[in-house]
Amino acid sequence: MADQATRRRRGGGRAGATARRGAAVIEQMPFSPPINRDRPIEPLSQEGVAAIHDGAMRILEEIGIAFLNPEALGILREAGCTVEGDTVRMGRDFVMEMVGKAPSQFTLTPRNPARRLTVGGDTMLFGNVSSPPNYWDMEIGRKVPGTREQCANLLKLTQYFNCIHFAGGYPVEPVDIHASVRHLDVLYDKLTLTDKVMHAYSLGKERVEDVMEMVRIAGGLSHEEFEATPRMYTNINSTSPLKHDFPMIDGCLRLVRRGQAVVVTPFTLAGAMAPVTMAGAVAQSLAEALCAIALFQYVRPGCPCVIGTFTSNVDMKSGAPAFGTPEYMRATQMTGQMARFYGLPMRSSGVCAANVPDGQAMWETSNSLWAAVQSGTHMVYHAAGWLEGGLIASPEKFIMDCEVLQQIQRYMQPEVWDTSTDGIALDAIKSVGKTGHFFGIQHTQDRYTTAFYQPFLSDWRNYEGWEAAGAIWTPERAHLLYKRILETFEAPPMDAAIRDELAAFVARRKAEGGAPTDF
Amino acid sequence: MADQATRRRRGGGRAGATARRGAAVIEQMPFSPPINRDRPIEPLSQEGVAAIHDGAMRILEEIGIAFLNPEALGILREAGCTVEGDTVRMGRDFVMEMVGKAPSQFTLTPRNPARRLTVGGDTMLFGNVSSPPNYWDMEIGRKVPGTREQCANLLKLTQYFNCIHFAGGYPVEPVDIHASVRHLDVLYDKLTLTDKVMHAYSLGKERVEDVMEMVRIAGGLSHEEFEATPRMYTNINSTSPLKHDFPMIDGCLRLVRRGQAVVVTPFTLAGAMAPVTMAGAVAQSLAEALCAIALFQYVRPGCPCVIGTFTSNVDMKSGAPAFGTPEYMRATQMTGQMARFYGLPMRSSGVCAANVPDGQAMWETSNSLWAAVQSGTHMVYHAAGWLEGGLIASPEKFIMDCEVLQQIQRYMQPEVWDTSTDGIALDAIKSVGKTGHFFGIQHTQDRYTTAFYQPFLSDWRNYEGWEAAGAIWTPERAHLLYKRILETFEAPPMDAAIRDELAAFVARRKAEGGAPTDF
Repeated sequence: MADQATRRRRGGGRAGATARRGAAVIEQMPFSPPINRDRPIEPLSQEGVAAIHDGAMRILEEIGIAFLNPEALGILREAGCTVEGDTVRMGRDFVMEMVGKAPSQFTLTPRNPARRLTVGGDTMLFGNVSSPPNYWDMEIGRKVPGTREQCANLLKLTQYFNCIHFAGGYPVEPVDIHASVRHLDVLYDKLTLTDKVMHAYSLGKERVEDVMEMVRIAGGLSHEEFEATPRMYTNINSTSPLKHDFPMIDGCLRLVRRGQAVVVTPFTLAGAMAPVTMAGAVAQSLAEALCAIALFQYVRPGCPCVIGTFTSNVDMKSGAPAFGTPEYMRATQMTGQMARFYGLPMRSSGVCAANVPDGQAMWETSNSLWAAVQSGTHMVYHAAGWLEGGLIASPEKFIMDCEVLQQIQRYMQPEVWDTSTDGIALDAIKSVGKTGHFFGIQHTQDRYTTAFYQPFLSDWRNYEGWEAAGAIWTPERAHLLYKRILETFEAPPMDAAIRDELAAFVARRKAEGGAPTDF
Repeated sequence: MADQATRRRRGGGRAGATARRGAAVIEQMPFSPPINRDRPIEPLSQEGVAAIHDGAMRILEEIGIAFLNPEALGILREAGCTVEGDTVRMGRDFVMEMVGKAPSQFTLTPRNPARRLTVGGDTMLFGNVSSPPNYWDMEIGRKVPGTREQCANLLKLTQYFNCIHFAGGYPVEPVDIHASVRHLDVLYDKLTLTDKVMHAYSLGKERVEDVMEMVRIAGGLSHEEFEATPRMYTNINSTSPLKHDFPMIDGCLRLVRRGQAVVVTPFTLAGAMAPVTMAGAVAQSLAEALCAIALFQYVRPGCPCVIGTFTSNVDMKSGAPAFGTPEYMRATQMTGQMARFYGLPMRSSGVCAANVPDGQAMWETSNSLWAAVQSGTHMVYHAAGWLEGGLIASPEKFIMDCEVLQQIQRYMQPEVWDTSTDGIALDAIKSVGKTGHFFGIQHTQDRYTTAFYQPFLSDWRNYEGWEAAGAIWTPERAHLLYKRILETFEAPPMDAAIRDELAAFVARRKAEGGAPTDF
């Protein structure tokens, strides 16, 4: 079995060669998660950090969190927490002791080990948009419910773009597949169309167990190998305010017991599910996340946990959620400070409220992506493809976002600010003097192919050149690129035996009826 | 005369009331330049700062800069610099002594003293796009040469938007006015349509002297009052590599001798007019700026000088300039570190290479505006309205940029991260508990009107609401807003006597033939 697994993994190693063939549509940067070298932006003073920490702890101590999960209640009672009905109160000593057991950094190893990721430290990871129920593209021109085909197409983008490091949830919800078997079909598509780190929704034990099994099969792993190191993760949201529901906690417990990773991301919209004041919304978000992480650390000390933030504000005129706002940016930065205080890796998102991939979409998304950089975020969810507050997935937006993500990757390369003798280039300046030009000189010739970021979507021609080429605006250019990428897409290699085993598993589980749909 | 001036200035004070009437088209934030509270992003180590400084100094010491201005050559010779032909070499001791005389902070007082600006410290100032020869809007739909009417319309936006703090150069070059008298007509328009800080092009002594005189008249100032404190500024570019031409230096000398401010902004495109390596391009830019500032400080010790950066890279495929790139961002941040090292206020820009106000325009502009924040920039030129690398001015882009600028203004307000007891809001969290909602509670009701940034252009409705309202993309929304702002625009008040005096000055100078056009 181990031998077979090794052979199969070698198959995965050929992904690089295939990716290069597919990459002919555009020149892109290599698969190499950025190392965030910027000192984070920290709006909070030490007193501010202490105040938010105290607020979060008092929420856990004085108000308590509801765990609608009897198993969790039993465990937390055993751990010494105060449990009344479904409300759990826990002291700050317990919380800090448990959270202190969580690693500040860990790895996630997908079926292609060349795609192994470090979560934590200085590494920044980007994932595709996850879970929109609807799809929009330039050709359809309107919002439509997601399908399996659209989902697969967006998974192809997830695989294609080297700046996308992990596969999040379904890039669009394929509502044409019955909910009982949707996870089986989509995971089959995900595991065969991509070789990047996988995610499972915590929506009932069957889904979680099925996905773990499929990830194990796809990796050619024994059960022991699967559990030896994190291979995948789940992401859960609390039901703000102050509640964890049954399946989310259940899914996490199943994952951590098998050595897999969990991301806990409360969705605290200030003014709706959380206080209208951002520090309060952050404190509540932290309380909701930390109590779950404390539970998981008690169950499996040292298990890999990520603290997520999804704190934004509502539009006070309409009550609609707003994203990429100044308040969102500061909440993300504050959460970054607190994540460092707790020693936990952090997740935030690439988000916008815009309904179409236009200027508003890009300033809101830029705001949120730069906030991710500034906050020291490790996992950036929804980094490509998100519209309408997460209700729409768009391939054009996906491709536009990837241009921004690549720029962040380039921005973090220290050669950009090289101050060596070659970097200062005094001899070059001397040789050109006051009347020359730097284009032709050796110093330029030696470097020009790699000196600057090369866009794949931005049009840097002048207006006349752009007009002569059809006067194509950015989303239309992205749409054309989308079509070309789909035409030439080649799935990463997978051993036929593994593919058969996966297909057989899907068939068997479908025959068994899949998963209950009463969640 | 002094009494009359005081009376006239009181007239300017009424601008606030009028602005409020005009502001009915949108709700906008008040005229209140943001205080940049973020610790700057500093890519350079101390050694890196020392290396770039040494590079800049060696350029000045070993290579020298050409000053195509006999007066400057004479002054610098007198100051002890080595002058050979038009090449000036100056030692680092001299440069640092002179630069040390420049104030790190100063004020600019326009005709409406309520619009007085602090340049330096933590204050961030935004100015309109300056000097594009062409205009583009959604109605015309193509690039056309600028006109006086378009220029005036963009000046109305400059006045209308509170987030625009100073008037830069002509927001579009009105090529329908003969170059000999263009400055007279546009300055008349600028001074009557806006009451914000004015700029003069350093394009020959007549233009500089005329503009100073018109600013003096518009302010109702005596000559002594005009010279008592900075009322206006010029911005010059060096002719990179390593050259200052005649009229730029001449204009600056005229301004500093009358106590006005100068901004020195080399345009060092890495790979074209500067080394392909960004640190080299920055070192060259600093050398070109510092030698001019040293000259001005020798002539008028303590005169207000700003060091500008316009270091970007070319597209190595086409040779076209690229803007808002990762390299641009790092160059801006590096220049920020160096500006702090020299104790000088700094200017950077809001820029993009995009030809139309689409997604690319906004990610490139966002990159450059966040780089301005991150670098500790004090004056942000071209902060609104720039397209095609500065060759096109667009009212839609102007309005879209203002939405981003307002968000930066809001981002800098410390109440966003208030961690007081009210900010943490534990009582509110307690009162809502696990099943309630924060919309209706008193803590929310007390704050909801001011809790969050309110956009004037972003559409935060869901897709269906947006579709029902016409499915209008961002640039079209901006265009509609542009038309409404123009319809309701009211110029700031100006005493009839001053207006007459300005008009008479323009008529007289036109009769005298205006300015030579052989620059």
